[in-house]
Amino acid sequence: MAKPAIAAVLSFSIVLLSILAQQSSSSSSFKPISSRRAPRFLGRFSTSNPHHRDRRSDQLLGYRYETRYFEQQLDHFSFAELPTFRQRYLISSEHWVGPDRLGPIFLYCGNEGDIEWFAANSGFVWEIAPSFGAMVVFPEHRYYGESMPYGSQEEAYKNGASLSYLTAEQALADFAVLITDLKRNLSAEACPVVLFGGSYGGMLAAWMRLKYPHIAIGALASSAPILQFEDIVPPETFYDIVSNDFKRESTSCFNTIKASWNALISEGQKENGLSKLTRMFRLCRELKNTEELANWLDSAYSFLAMVDYPYPSEFLMPLPGYPIREVCRKIDGCPDGTSILERVFEGVSVYYNYTGEVDCFELDDDPHGMDGWNWQACTEMVMPMSSSPDASMFPTYNFNFSAFQEECWTDFKVIPRPTWITTHFGGKDIMTTLKTFGSNIIFSNGFLDPWSGYRD
Amino acid sequence: MAKPAIAAVLSFSIVLLSILAQQSSSSSSFKPISSRRAPRFLGRFSTSNPHHRDRRSDQLLGYRYETRYFEQQLDHFSFAELPTFRQRYLISSEHWVGPDRLGPIFLYCGNEGDIEWFAANSGFVWEIAPSFGAMVVFPEHRYYGESMPYGSQEEAYKNGASLSYLTAEQALADFAVLITDLKRNLSAEACPVVLFGGSYGGMLAAWMRLKYPHIAIGALASSAPILQFEDIVPPETFYDIVSNDFKRESTSCFNTIKASWNALISEGQKENGLSKLTRMFRLCRELKNTEELANWLDSAYSFLAMVDYPYPSEFLMPLPGYPIREVCRKIDGCPDGTSILERVFEGVSVYYNYTGEVDCFELDDDPHGMDGWNWQACTEMVMPMSSSPDASMFPTYNFNFSAFQEECWTDFKVIPRPTWITTHFGGKDIMTTLKTFGSNIIFSNGFLDPWSGYRD
Repeated sequence: MAKPAIAAVLSFSIVLLSILAQQSSSSSSFKPISSRRAPRFLGRFSTSNPHHRDRRSDQLLGYRYETRYFEQQLDHFSFAELPTFRQRYLISSEHWVGPDRLGPIFLYCGNEGDIEWFAANSGFVWEIAPSFGAMVVFPEHRYYGESMPYGSQEEAYKNGASLSYLTAEQALADFAVLITDLKRNLSAEACPVVLFGGSYGGMLAAWMRLKYPHIAIGALASSAPILQFEDIVPPETFYDIVSNDFKRESTSCFNTIKASWNALISEGQKENGLSKLTRMFRLCRELKNTEELANWLDSAYSFLAMVDYPYPSEFLMPLPGYPIREVCRKIDGCPDGTSILERVFEGVSVYYNYTGEVDCFELDDDPHGMDGWNWQACTEMVMPMSSSPDASMFPTYNFNFSAFQEECWTDFKVIPRPTWITTHFGGKDIMTTLKTFGSNIIFSNGFLDPWSGYRD
Repeated sequence: MAKPAIAAVLSFSIVLLSILAQQSSSSSSFKPISSRRAPRFLGRFSTSNPHHRDRRSDQLLGYRYETRYFEQQLDHFSFAELPTFRQRYLISSEHWVGPDRLGPIFLYCGNEGDIEWFAANSGFVWEIAPSFGAMVVFPEHRYYGESMPYGSQEEAYKNGASLSYLTAEQALADFAVLITDLKRNLSAEACPVVLFGGSYGGMLAAWMRLKYPHIAIGALASSAPILQFEDIVPPETFYDIVSNDFKRESTSCFNTIKASWNALISEGQKENGLSKLTRMFRLCRELKNTEELANWLDSAYSFLAMVDYPYPSEFLMPLPGYPIREVCRKIDGCPDGTSILERVFEGVSVYYNYTGEVDCFELDDDPHGMDGWNWQACTEMVMPMSSSPDASMFPTYNFNFSAFQEECWTDFKVIPRPTWITTHFGGKDIMTTLKTFGSNIIFSNGFLDPWSGYRD
């Protein structure tokens, strides 16, 4: 599809993969055997989880900012009597040249996680701010990190009623209200605002530029799959790209992984099969079924594709440069006679245990099982994902909306609105809209980024 | 201020006043003595009230359409468990050339009243539809006409909680969801949608083009005061223009009206003054205070300015062409010795009793006193209006937000959000946004239209 010239240049540049993709991360929890499909970007099996955070404190110290809080309406679009909540935001005026010189404001659209984590991993924003004389602001997304309605995460995540206001439109309105107030207080009304964001945050950045053109003059939307809704793009795209990222490194690696799912199932069906798998994969607790192990493996491959940077990184996990190459080197390099499952264990250990510090692996990395993204996926962020029989190395899977809807009802007593996002933000024939309305949006993606298939 | 070329040409054309303004109507209930100020467009003292409707049935028959209903979410922006409601819409495919020939869809953004009334008074839309081969759709605004949440007007208007979802953003989302569904069902996804609207409906049309550029390719926003928020335009603008509409016809007429308010107060303070006023103004019931009479007079002048068409019309009331000229002819033409108050009674009788059929005049034309527009004015549509001591013929009045806020609390237990509309839709420096984003919006106004001061 056609794309704006500047985006075209950038999105085909491996340099972008190196620089911009730092701020983008995403994933999808894959349960190859179950009918369940709740696409997700971040969360499980990554350093975004609090118990992984401590090791990264050194990185958090890298950028200097102030932490502030802003009182927000819980529902910007109704006047129901609801409690307000405190939105956290990080702000740095260190390099800002101020309102008289029209110093720009770089606004990172916080996505589904602790904002400090995104701040620590969005080096590009911090690095270019001084040369633009820009202020840097990182507002946190409602219902994540410290920005909890109803006083605490426990209360906010209590049920569907308390989660009601966790939507992208509300989050954008939070950003709009915050930045408008901030600019007024600083007499900086005339200062241009430039949006940044990666993954879901990149979608927010693009949408914010479209919905609030009077607030932001442009957006850098990195790895933002704004077209992954309804039937705009084939639902197999994500897994096809992940799979291709492995295939380009090694066809035998691709084939080994593709063969591993059946090997896993047949091993699990044997007597003491689950126990044997538990030991083989060094799990901390006894495996209940093969599905949870398959999900753990799937997550590793998907995350690896999203952070397949050419340099070492610690965004999701401590990893070497070109981590997929490293995974395939391990899988392919095992001595003759090594089983398929032993090979894939060697492979995913690159993701889960590159530092070699892990004693055993936790499968229950998302203990409450009801995190914010699951809610978002079950309400408006319905992003169908399937796995094709040939091009994909994952088990064949066809997204089934009815089954998805049923599980959302079971989990949250909520009915998804699968056509709302495209109705509200557009999507179909988006290029026409972008050409006439959505000026100054750069959609950046690396070649290897599995989300690259979901934007023009 | 600068404006797009086409709008400039059109908005200075008296032809527009004749044609487009048919679909626009608005007013402001003015209580010159009270501190209360809740600007309103339609409603009181006009044929929009049901008991005035019967006389207009012949006009309603003028345009052929089908009446349909569409199930809408009550809150598009949250997933709280709420009942859906039935939105009424009028549709005519009579002249539509269909999807294969990309027949356009003319979408009138229903405003604060019964949609049949707007359909009957938007001749321009109906008249041009055949030459464009266009479908015509008139969706009703939620909480008006038959489009009542919670099953009935009584339930919908019960209290602040039930009224919560009466907002412009929700109404726009209704339009977006409806038209998207309609187009899908007709395989008409590629057919362009053009928006129309007058007064508040014109604001909705302009905002919809800005917020939903992927849905509508353009908008004709007639008499749409999108800048009447915060301090963007001087709050005296409206009453200054109304006053000028009278002054241009006759300075003595202007002076008589300007002198009448004090005459009214001093008459009311005399013994039996209120009784005398009751008889003089032929009221159906005894006057309680001079404020309610002043309000009745003010409404007449404001409405007259809004429908000062050069041809006879029946939009608000049956009126002659150039009705303000007629009012001033009456006021100025009374025999020498006629009192100021007798003169203004002769004048407003042109508005309230042009047909001569009225036996006595009702002051309580808005019996429940809590109509939808009052709620909208008390929540997000905070449009400050003042009356200047010199240029205005109305009593001097300064908009007082604190007093306004207190009265909203008393009436609805709601706290207004006076900066929300400009934050969400823009307003300050709107020209920059319109130039780069808001293409294809025509802001049309006649010279005499009091709302003409609130748009670029």
